[in-house]
Formats: sequence, structure tokens, C-alpha cells
Amino acid sequence: MQNINVGLLGFGTIGTGVVKVFQQNHDLLVSRLGTGIELVRIADLDTQSDRGVQLPPGLLTDDAQGLLNDPQIQIVIELIGGYEPARTFVLQAIRNGKHVVTANKALLAKHGEEIFRAAEEAGVEVMFEASVGGGIPVISAIKENLGANHFSALYGILNGTCNYILSQMDEEGIDFDEVLIEAQRRGYAEADPTFDIEGIDTAHKLALLCSLCFGTKVDFDKVYTEGIRKLTALDIQYARDFGYKLKLLAIGKRDGDRIEARVHPTMIPEDYPLSSINGVFNSIRLVGDFSGPVMLSGYGAGMAATASAVMGDVLAVARNLRTDVSTRVPALGCPQSVLSSFSIKPMDQLVTHYYLRFTVKDQPGVLAKIAGVLGKYRISIESMVQPHRHEAEAVPIVFMTHEAEERNVIAALAEIDQLDVVQEETLLIRIEENLE
Amino acid sequence: MQNINVGLLGFGTIGTGVVKVFQQNHDLLVSRLGTGIELVRIADLDTQSDRGVQLPPGLLTDDAQGLLNDPQIQIVIELIGGYEPARTFVLQAIRNGKHVVTANKALLAKHGEEIFRAAEEAGVEVMFEASVGGGIPVISAIKENLGANHFSALYGILNGTCNYILSQMDEEGIDFDEVLIEAQRRGYAEADPTFDIEGIDTAHKLALLCSLCFGTKVDFDKVYTEGIRKLTALDIQYARDFGYKLKLLAIGKRDGDRIEARVHPTMIPEDYPLSSINGVFNSIRLVGDFSGPVMLSGYGAGMAATASAVMGDVLAVARNLRTDVSTRVPALGCPQSVLSSFSIKPMDQLVTHYYLRFTVKDQPGVLAKIAGVLGKYRISIESMVQPHRHEAEAVPIVFMTHEAEERNVIAALAEIDQLDVVQEETLLIRIEENLE
Repeated sequence: MQNINVGLLGFGTIGTGVVKVFQQNHDLLVSRLGTGIELVRIADLDTQSDRGVQLPPGLLTDDAQGLLNDPQIQIVIELIGGYEPARTFVLQAIRNGKHVVTANKALLAKHGEEIFRAAEEAGVEVMFEASVGGGIPVISAIKENLGANHFSALYGILNGTCNYILSQMDEEGIDFDEVLIEAQRRGYAEADPTFDIEGIDTAHKLALLCSLCFGTKVDFDKVYTEGIRKLTALDIQYARDFGYKLKLLAIGKRDGDRIEARVHPTMIPEDYPLSSINGVFNSIRLVGDFSGPVMLSGYGAGMAATASAVMGDVLAVARNLRTDVSTRVPALGCPQSVLSSFSIKPMDQLVTHYYLRFTVKDQPGVLAKIAGVLGKYRISIESMVQPHRHEAEAVPIVFMTHEAEERNVIAALAEIDQLDVVQEETLLIRIEENLE
Repeated sequence: MQNINVGLLGFGTIGTGVVKVFQQNHDLLVSRLGTGIELVRIADLDTQSDRGVQLPPGLLTDDAQGLLNDPQIQIVIELIGGYEPARTFVLQAIRNGKHVVTANKALLAKHGEEIFRAAEEAGVEVMFEASVGGGIPVISAIKENLGANHFSALYGILNGTCNYILSQMDEEGIDFDEVLIEAQRRGYAEADPTFDIEGIDTAHKLALLCSLCFGTKVDFDKVYTEGIRKLTALDIQYARDFGYKLKLLAIGKRDGDRIEARVHPTMIPEDYPLSSINGVFNSIRLVGDFSGPVMLSGYGAGMAATASAVMGDVLAVARNLRTDVSTRVPALGCPQSVLSSFSIKPMDQLVTHYYLRFTVKDQPGVLAKIAGVLGKYRISIESMVQPHRHEAEAVPIVFMTHEAEERNVIAALAEIDQLDVVQEETLLIRIEENLE
């Protein structure tokens, strides 16, 4: 049969990785497919920069339309990122009958429904393994290998920048701002790190994973999202004292006809496997009704690992093309028509354990006042530490609560933060005791 | 389109799990496929025992031939185990044009080439995700998602019985024999545990993983296999003192046109993620040239987890059938014709670090004698402990070596074990310092 022809939109870091796979592992791809596969065109506005790879003359152009309308191209890899023009280009590729492989979680979290429906109508596949967890094969695991399971929960460390920062804060005992500068210097954080450290990138990925695991549409705007900026080395130290690690965790749970979908700093027991995922590594723990917990870990980002995932998808589509199949696995594992529309449980109905760090005047009676308000809202205390700090006007007091309803915790904190002995806004960190 | 019809050979523990998936998650399977899928026949010699699941009358028979020759059955699940009659039945199913899903690692490690060739000739798929790592989707990860990678190495904790025993020895500080009895009582070890504790089950799985990762035929009989029976709680204690965990590790490495394929007790640094895989959990670490290290963990055995993997394969084959594809992914990820025939590097050429526990008379000069022989064979010592043991005639001395060639270590031990101060055969445990 004829060669399979691939076009690449976006020639940045990941795009360069994809070119390297095509060049270095071409024989392997051919032997897996039993047929030729070629990267026949790359489109990027920047046709001049040296990316450290040699291209045949004419392969790289600035003409995306030429690529999208080239009838010989069967698979389009979209690595432009962001909403536009990625959305327009992807929809155009689909309408032109091309299969699409993308790493663009922002695009899919926001415009997934439109794109997946268009793909179903056109009879093409949209694959996006590289959009979550870099080189970790989590999306196909959910749709295919673990596809006979109902999932009750998923837990993910999904952002390498945040995990690197928290790991460094933990290891070095230094505060957020200082580690961020170092992370930026080393290339582990963007110049504008907002998307990462505010949890938005993690929330994009969680929305996709919830859709896949629970077979439901997910309204991305309703995913609770809280970043890591306000965490201090002190909180990480307290976490350790209580036997926890502090991670930016993506949590998805099925609760009848509703789901939990939340991203926030979370304390997890230190002997849990997710606690040992450090630095730029990502990990996802999926809990299926037959499989039990399955955990997948690896590089969550980077040129090579993400290119590996992109090319895994290209291989899957190419295997379909080789056998004349148009669509084999729906984008979200089930056809759009059978997806549920579960609502996301409001955060004030969450029931969990809490870490509360109060900053108070160092004077008698403070503890009683705080405990009194907590008691009034039926929040019971599991443990408390009040470190001696002679020098300071404001001292921390840390409470670990038993299970409590978040609405009560929020109400109690609103009242406590009005007390004249309280010096700063109280810091709340949720605890996940049981990752089953 | 018409229902997809599945037949099940072997109605033991895993078979019962498969029936449960069909019954409990039938709607999910149908929604993933967009078509009906039914378990239409089960064959087992025992048609009487109560497995705790209700079956429609007539579904269960003792007539394997009837199932294998039933033209309405498109997918045969083989869960008989062992070599025969599983081999004959699988070949017959293939010749009859049926796709096969199996969990039988022994069969595939031994007769894989015959079976995979027959499947290629008949144009059917043989899938075996459940044969390695229970519910962990490792096989499809290698063939598909990570399929664009050349792998340099794989490391696996692949036998839940051994890992449970070693974890218990570690936690409780008790010796092998005692833990084994407890494991048998709790159902984590077979009445005859030979296959598990001698490493044979792990070697079967390693042979399959090496074939998949390195694209080569593997002569199972040449896989080096050493079990855990001779390990003591003392060795685990020493491992911990030196900063290691002791695991039965399956190791596969590419070394030019040869591979390493070896199963033996191995010390690995305690802060490595594989070190935290305890109890009946399994884990596989794959090192790809683009993906970097990817680690997959979960239940390595058991009714439900293994049934999850079986049904993931059934889903994959059913998706092919739904789109009229016969074979989409070759059994080993590449056609049989392009597989290499790498030889397995002989163990005496291995170069690694060693833990050596000598059992000697407690008298002056012993250390010098042993060190002298090691020096003669150019084995240099990284560290040594010689615990005070006042009560005993025979005392242990433990050496950790720098990198050494195994042939030298074996020759040195043969000489040392002849010394009159040496009381017992010396215990050698290999160390894996760097799991990249």
C-alpha cells in the first residue's frame, strides 16, 4: 500500500521532538506498520530559526492552508497550542477528512465537544494522548485497556512545574518565590507561569480525564481551581510533621449523578505512592471497579516525552489507515451521543479533612477563641500544634480537622478571620486521607 | 450490525471475573462499542461447582470442541492455563478464524512463536495483556502508545507472591519459610509455590516483555532465573542498612545485538519508585529513547484485575470487528518476519555491583583471607560490615563490591568457599544501582 503522509502544524519544542522521532526512529515506525510513513510538510510562521534538526528543502513552510488542504496528507499533528488559530485549523483538518493528533489540552478542555462532534460527523479520529501527562499512556489506558471498568476516582499530579516547585520547597526548605525564580532559570517554569502555578493547566487536564473516566461532558469553567502560590515552606514542614506530602493534586470522583472535579494543594499520606512522585515527573492514579488502583508515572512534559506520546497516536491512526478503518475508538471512549452530563458537585458540599493554619497574636486565650468558633460550626479537631515562637508578634497555630463539610469550614474561617487576635487570612489546605 | 459473540475456555478464578465484568458492566461495554457484545458459551470440565455467579441455562458446557467450532463465536478467551490442552485449543481457535485473548504467559513464553505465526497466517489477533502484570496495561503501552520508542531497558516486579513474601520479610523481620506459610494461608501463594518463588513465572513474563520491547525472539530457556528461597530476613536488614530494598526483579536490557534477560533477587536504591511497590502490587519500568522512564503499577494478579485486562483486550478485538478489521496490531508489535534473533548475554559476562554474605568462623585473619581472594580476582570492595556476634560459632561478614565481572565473582567465591574458615556457601545478591 501507499505511504502514510503526515503534516505538522507548529514547529516549536514538541514539533522539533516529533521531527526527531521521524528521523531517528523511522525504521522502527515502518517495521511496526509494515508500510512507509513520512512527514511531508511542516507549517510554522517562523521558517528561519535553527531548531537543531536538518530538514529537506521545501518541507517547512509558513502556509498552514496549503498543509490543511493538501489531499495527500492523511494525518495532521497540531502543536500550535492555545485556542486560536488551533481551533480553526483543527476543525478545518477534520472537515477535510484528515485525522488529527494534538497535544493541546487547553483547546480540548474548552472546545472539545465541538471538535469531537465534528470528528464523529467527518468519520475521523482526534487523538490527544500527549495532552495529559506527557509521555504517560493514560488516555488510551482509560479508553481502551481499562475500558471495561467503571471508575470511581482519579488522582493526578499533572503539572511538572508545580511539582518541581513543591519538591524543591520540600527538599530545600525555601519559599515559593525563591524556587520559582530558580525554576524559571532552569527552564522548568515559563516566564509567565500563571497557567501552571494557578492550576489552570492541571484543571484543563483534569477536565479531560473526568470526561474519559466518567463518560460525561465536563463544564471546564466549573472545575474548582486553586494554585500553589500561597503555600510556604512552613506548610510543607508541618505536612511532613503530620505524616503528609503536599502536592498540587487533580481529583476526580464519581458521586452518583454528580462528579467532583477539583484542583488544589492537597496533603496526602507520605507513604502513598503518589507522594514519591517528585520533580518534573507526573503521575495518575485511576481506580476502576475491576482493575483496582492503577498508577502510571513518567515525564509530564518536555520535547522528547511529549513527542513520544504524539507519535504513539500517529502510529495508532496509521494502523487504522493501513487497515482502511476511519474511526475505531471514539475520542472520549464512547460516542458523544451516549455521554452523560453530570454536574460538578459544588465545593461547599465537599466533605474532607482540613489543615488550617491560623496566624495569631501570641497571647493567652487565642486558642480557646478559635476552638470555640470551630466547635460552633461542628468542626472537630484531630490534632493541633502551636509552636513556640518568642520573637514574633504573629505566630502560627495549626489545626488538623476530622472530616468536616466545607461550607462549615468556610463559615467558621470567615468568623475567625474577623477576630481581633487573628493577624492574617487563615490558610486552608485540604487533606485526602484515602486515595481509593 | 450484529452482536459480537465471545466464548470462554476455562471457568476458574479469572474466568469467573470475566463473567462478572460481562454481567456487571455490560451497558458500559455496549456504549463503548456502539454494538452488542455477549458471552455466548463457556467450556470447562467442571460444570458443577458454584462460582458465585448466575449463568443462563446451557451457557456452561464441558464441550471445548463445540465452542471452538461454533461459527457464531468470533472471540475466544483462553483461561485454562498451562501448556496443554491450552496450546492445542488456541491453535485450533486461530485456524478456525477466531481471535484469541489469553492470560497464559507460560504458553506464550514457550510456544509464542508458533501461535503468533499461526495468527498472522490466519489473519486474526492474539492478545495477552492479562499475561503480564495483571490489570496493568503494559503490553499495549509497549506495542502502541510507546511504540515509537527504542527501549534500552525494562525492570519489573512481576510476581505478587514473591513481592508479598519479601515485603512481609522486610516489615516483620521474619524468615522466608514462615512468611510462605502465612502467604499460603492467606491465598497469596499456591500450595505448590515453585513456579512463583523460583522465579519461573517472572521469567515467563520477562521473556514476553523482552520480545515486545526489543523486537526480538527470546529463547525462554536461556533467561537466567533465580528465585527467592535462599534469602533471609538478615539480608533484607543489611540491604536496608546499605540504603537498598530487596526485590525479585526482572531485568531486560538491550546491549547492541544481544540482550540481558535475567530474573534474580536484586538490591535497588530505596528511594527509587520501584522500591515502594509492596505486597501483591506489580510494577514495570520501561525506558524508551524518547519517552524516558515510564512506570506502570497496579495489582499483578487476582480475579478482578486480571479480568479487567482480559476484557480490555476483548474490547480492542471487538472494536476491530466492529470496523471489519481482522488484524490491526501484530502480537509482538511488529510482524514476526521483522523480529530480530538477539542472543541473551551469558551471565558470566554481566558487570554489576554485588552483595556478598560470607558465613565464617569468628576468628582473626578471616577478613584478610577473603579480601585477599577478592583482590586476586580484581574485585574491589566498596564497603564491609562485620557485626559483633558473641554467641555464634559462624558469623556473617557482608561485602558490597564496586562494579565487577560476574565470572570473576563466581571464580572468587568458588575459591573462598573452599577456605577452612568459611562455614556455609556464600550468598551472592546482585545490585542494580541505576535503573535507567
